[in-house]
Amino acid sequence: MKNHPIRVCLVGAGRAGKVHANSLANHLPSAQLVAVVDTSGPARDGMGEEFGVEVSSRFVSLEEALENSTFEAVVITTPTFTHATLAVTAAGAGKHVFLEKPMALNLAECDAIISATAKAGVALQLGFMRRFDPEFSAAAKRIQAGEIGRPMMVKSLTHGPGLPPAWARDLKTSNGALAEVNSHDWDCVRWLMADNYERVYVEVANFKGPANHVDTPHFYDNDLVNIRFEKGGLGSISGICPCAYGYDARVEIVGELGIMTIGELRGQAVVVCTNRDQGLITPIFRTWPERFAWGYIHEMAHFIDCIRTGTTPCVGGDEGRWAVAGVLAGTRSFLEERPVKLAEIFAENGEGGVC
Amino acid sequence: MKNHPIRVCLVGAGRAGKVHANSLANHLPSAQLVAVVDTSGPARDGMGEEFGVEVSSRFVSLEEALENSTFEAVVITTPTFTHATLAVTAAGAGKHVFLEKPMALNLAECDAIISATAKAGVALQLGFMRRFDPEFSAAAKRIQAGEIGRPMMVKSLTHGPGLPPAWARDLKTSNGALAEVNSHDWDCVRWLMADNYERVYVEVANFKGPANHVDTPHFYDNDLVNIRFEKGGLGSISGICPCAYGYDARVEIVGELGIMTIGELRGQAVVVCTNRDQGLITPIFRTWPERFAWGYIHEMAHFIDCIRTGTTPCVGGDEGRWAVAGVLAGTRSFLEERPVKLAEIFAENGEGGVC
Amino acid sequence: MKNHPIRVCLVGAGRAGKVHANSLANHLPSAQLVAVVDTSGPARDGMGEEFGVEVSSRFVSLEEALENSTFEAVVITTPTFTHATLAVTAAGAGKHVFLEKPMALNLAECDAIISATAKAGVALQLGFMRRFDPEFSAAAKRIQAGEIGRPMMVKSLTHGPGLPPAWARDLKTSNGALAEVNSHDWDCVRWLMADNYERVYVEVANFKGPANHVDTPHFYDNDLVNIRFEKGGLGSISGICPCAYGYDARVEIVGELGIMTIGELRGQAVVVCTNRDQGLITPIFRTWPERFAWGYIHEMAHFIDCIRTGTTPCVGGDEGRWAVAGVLAGTRSFLEERPVKLAEIFAENGEGGVC
Amino acid sequence: MKNHPIRVCLVGAGRAGKVHANSLANHLPSAQLVAVVDTSGPARDGMGEEFGVEVSSRFVSLEEALENSTFEAVVITTPTFTHATLAVTAAGAGKHVFLEKPMALNLAECDAIISATAKAGVALQLGFMRRFDPEFSAAAKRIQAGEIGRPMMVKSLTHGPGLPPAWARDLKTSNGALAEVNSHDWDCVRWLMADNYERVYVEVANFKGPANHVDTPHFYDNDLVNIRFEKGGLGSISGICPCAYGYDARVEIVGELGIMTIGELRGQAVVVCTNRDQGLITPIFRTWPERFAWGYIHEMAHFIDCIRTGTTPCVGGDEGRWAVAGVLAGTRSFLEERPVKLAEIFAENGEGGVC
Repeated sequence: MKNHPIRVCLVGAGRAGKVHANSLANHLPSAQLVAVVDTSGPARDGMGEEFGVEVSSRFVSLEEALENSTFEAVVITTPTFTHATLAVTAAGAGKHVFLEKPMALNLAECDAIISATAKAGVALQLGFMRRFDPEFSAAAKRIQAGEIGRPMMVKSLTHGPGLPPAWARDLKTSNGALAEVNSHDWDCVRWLMADNYERVYVEVANFKGPANHVDTPHFYDNDLVNIRFEKGGLGSISGICPCAYGYDARVEIVGELGIMTIGELRGQAVVVCTNRDQGLITPIFRTWPERFAWGYIHEMAHFIDCIRTGTTPCVGGDEGRWAVAGVLAGTRSFLEERPVKLAEIFAENGEGGVC
Repeated sequence: MKNHPIRVCLVGAGRAGKVHANSLANHLPSAQLVAVVDTSGPARDGMGEEFGVEVSSRFVSLEEALENSTFEAVVITTPTFTHATLAVTAAGAGKHVFLEKPMALNLAECDAIISATAKAGVALQLGFMRRFDPEFSAAAKRIQAGEIGRPMMVKSLTHGPGLPPAWARDLKTSNGALAEVNSHDWDCVRWLMADNYERVYVEVANFKGPANHVDTPHFYDNDLVNIRFEKGGLGSISGICPCAYGYDARVEIVGELGIMTIGELRGQAVVVCTNRDQGLITPIFRTWPERFAWGYIHEMAHFIDCIRTGTTPCVGGDEGRWAVAGVLAGTRSFLEERPVKLAEIFAENGEGGVC
Repeated sequence: MKNHPIRVCLVGAGRAGKVHANSLANHLPSAQLVAVVDTSGPARDGMGEEFGVEVSSRFVSLEEALENSTFEAVVITTPTFTHATLAVTAAGAGKHVFLEKPMALNLAECDAIISATAKAGVALQLGFMRRFDPEFSAAAKRIQAGEIGRPMMVKSLTHGPGLPPAWARDLKTSNGALAEVNSHDWDCVRWLMADNYERVYVEVANFKGPANHVDTPHFYDNDLVNIRFEKGGLGSISGICPCAYGYDARVEIVGELGIMTIGELRGQAVVVCTNRDQGLITPIFRTWPERFAWGYIHEMAHFIDCIRTGTTPCVGGDEGRWAVAGVLAGTRSFLEERPVKLAEIFAENGEGGVC
Repeated sequence: MKNHPIRVCLVGAGRAGKVHANSLANHLPSAQLVAVVDTSGPARDGMGEEFGVEVSSRFVSLEEALENSTFEAVVITTPTFTHATLAVTAAGAGKHVFLEKPMALNLAECDAIISATAKAGVALQLGFMRRFDPEFSAAAKRIQAGEIGRPMMVKSLTHGPGLPPAWARDLKTSNGALAEVNSHDWDCVRWLMADNYERVYVEVANFKGPANHVDTPHFYDNDLVNIRFEKGGLGSISGICPCAYGYDARVEIVGELGIMTIGELRGQAVVVCTNRDQGLITPIFRTWPERFAWGYIHEMAHFIDCIRTGTTPCVGGDEGRWAVAGVLAGTRSFLEERPVKLAEIFAENGEGGVC
């Protein structure tokens, strides 16, 4: 048990970075945010100012941070195509790794990360914060306890308000919305069904690309995934981004004994009516940091706790790799207009983990 | 058991009359709307046209109808100050009486109605349709079955959208909103608590009168009633009219074992969001005929069924009289700024019923 | 305009038959239930007793009814495999036809029905009561008015509590759950998207068959449909039967401007809590007659009204045929484990309707 | 602006103390919990262990703490009858004071506290965390912005699950449930109506006392308050404790333009149904620390921030004093069975604050 605060370097000073910086700086006395890395000066300075990281601890690269600062862990929140290199570098330097989703672009990269962290004996945690959300985690416990019986069908959706940045729309740099928007769903359905995908089929649509002047090849802003699980259960994932109306992350799961719904559209229990022709008005969740406020705090607390106690994070490389495998099968499915088995993906990229 | 359709004369061709005409004409094959009475020609003709009552069966007065038409029952939906005379006349002619709330202006009138119908051996049913609403009636059964234990506290509210007509704002012709708006609440709290009021205290407020050029003495558009029941339970009633935002009728009741809520603001399970800064929009109940659509049908079915089978309506003169007694005590309370015991009201007006 | 009540013969005295008999006998003064047909004596006698159809007007076959009774319309609620013959016979005798879903077993049967009713000049209405449900119909109007913008993705589910009868589980006599359980969804998604299916992909699962001793070939009790629409929109349908937990029919639809949800799990606005470790308890819809009480009344009112005014029902042969086409494509999809285009189905069975 | 963490001594190691210790130790990097005071050894040691307060900084009395430890602020969470002495002592020693509700037993005590803190120039914040709850504070802002128009009627309830301790049931040591349970409601209705109580009327009931062997004079477990505000608005407060079913804190407020509801029974957006005869089950809020998790953090953050920046807490002595005045008027009302004006209370105890 380590009794000193764990020193953390944040790599990536964007929106996700800010969420984690807030957890580290304001809600986790056993952690300390000591360094920030970002290629953008304004981004890293903004983060540094807001969360009290000294000017001398703001760096352009992870390498620079490793040379000039002292920390035990990194939190990586950069674009997907940089994940493998950063995570392997950090592990190589003996740092514990908290890695945002999606884990990486392909299974080979996932394997490199898993292998590097294992070799270095450091913790690897994936940023699947839904597992730490009070609602999702309570729901999962109840499912595992048998409350709804053997799971038969799960549906998970993530709809986000804004147009993703260019790199997150391009299959080459991110695998597109199936990865950027739906990574959490891929992880959730596996987790809640306690089963692996066997086969996936995906339809996609591009409704808003033209109006947004998006000409990225294969761009889509709507996806609908059909999953067959190994034990015979069925699953559905949908992604819509930009959906305009708010941030929407909900799950329904039906077991042999009954149904469970997790999450809701409503963002606050305040209801107003001032016009009977319009009706009742209730706030919706506007953004993901708002929706998963406690989930983000709890997942980081788990990471810090694992480092302090020398235990293994409950959601790591295998979970990240499976989500990537789902994305790859799904992408091939809509490109080739056919169902794709996970076995096909694994055969090309190496076997899946023990999970 | 009578096998022919029960012939009914509707007295009062206003909004409540239309609701009952619809039940009689469109949903109750064992009833027949055969005559309409209203002092207003356009009103009775409009009703006649809509519900198929022949021109020769549209009358200016109940007396005229009694002379020129044949029917077994009357449904009285005229203003409160006419109730006693009409009901006594109908009973005197041997007609069964369905009487809209409030029963009458005072206990003497209530007693006259009870006495006349009893003497004539005809049915007397009060228009407390909440007792026939699927939600309220299911709730009442569950309370009676002990699901929430011995009731300790009940809260019932009725807020209506529009300014009442002049006669319904005047204490002399209607007893005001405590009667016109809250009669259902007075009945509901007695019914659900299975207990009688012992003492009431009322505060009222007049917020919109001036803007609506209402100069009726003692006019109020907000009332808040505090009730002590005979067995020690507590009750709250609120009335707001006009409330602007829709039609709102809800109850909460707490027993020794738990809480029950009955009804809701939401009028339809359709939710829309097109603006994340505005939030979710859901229809509200706009009007009472919409909110209690089934309640109105079921209460009239009960009345017709009682006539056909010769049984006594489950909600009659005693229920109506108690509601009037509550109104009288409440009115005196806010006029004299003190709690008023029901015993005081009954002492002046004669004893309460068996109830 | 016909002013006499429309005389109706009900063919099929099962659960759906009873729902329609109730509408005809108790809520539609302009209709008259005059005859009942069922091969089962107890079934037709039970129906006759309950809804006042004389013994002499209860028949074993439609032919017998046509010979011995006088009516202008039939309501057909028998098993799917009998639909075409009955509807064609009724049309041949000049009777208006209200036909329960699914329309028929295949497109050839659908075409025969469409052709027979067209030739006879009689009305043909399909039993898609969701179109007449207050919530669904209000929602459809708002979508058509552009409230959520161009529809991008729709999800519709029907989960029912009990094991279907043997004929409804067998692809040969009913096309299975995709037809028996999900016909309404097939119709709803076309209606709400205002678009036709272009391609469908289906996964099915059999979770409870073994425990229920069901050995019907290809039996499934869970289905999950992925739809691509002609204009590029996406759709999902799920069916679970038996689902155990209640009757569940809900839709979510996302357009370019926002989301709309239609329907809910909750069956009644009564909430109880007596145990803080258990939580709040609220009734669920138990059955479809309960969920769609008004929809069933309104759809039959529409049918009767069309007959009286000589107009064409707003949901007829084309709608029924498209739902059947979706079922056929979906069935082939899961049998052959590939996406199936509707064009393939239509090429074999003849062109789709104008719709 | 002070840049060092504010050192805080917690006085009272009970349930409320633990909630504040958690905020100070785990969510407020700018604060430091340095000392704990409690007369109970196990209580202060338990608190010390859990939140890292050294053995040498755990004290039996505030005086001992003042002598042996260094801190700038106290958080007082002891029983009501000790508040005045502790707060005055702390202020006398120049410490900033965060004082749990109810402020004190009477207006004289309130005045002593207000005067002592004012004289010492230290901050005084009352523990009205609902003002810092995301829902309540958003609602208040919207009301202040005029969204529902001029407030006409407010209803606020607090129902708590367990039997209060003996001192909290006794009018002499706590003023009973009107104070212990409903202090937040007294504050909320003033805040949301932006108006002061003019007159109150209270009914109380004792349902569970006998079964719980409570023989405290004037004990009640149900209270229902009727309020008239100075500008003519109406208010209702209800308190039930023990209510058995969970922790329940909700407000409804109606303005000239519409209605607003704040809070709900439901504690988590997870819904399960496994039995259609039972219905849907959803978690309820079980306890107040759970319901107001963010409110407790935000109120303490405000206190610390006020100390650091030398500003005055937005909820202080006046707010606490008004709540006490409401309690005193309410208590007299039910004891003397009459409405009681606040003027009567103030006349005896000195004038109310500027508020």
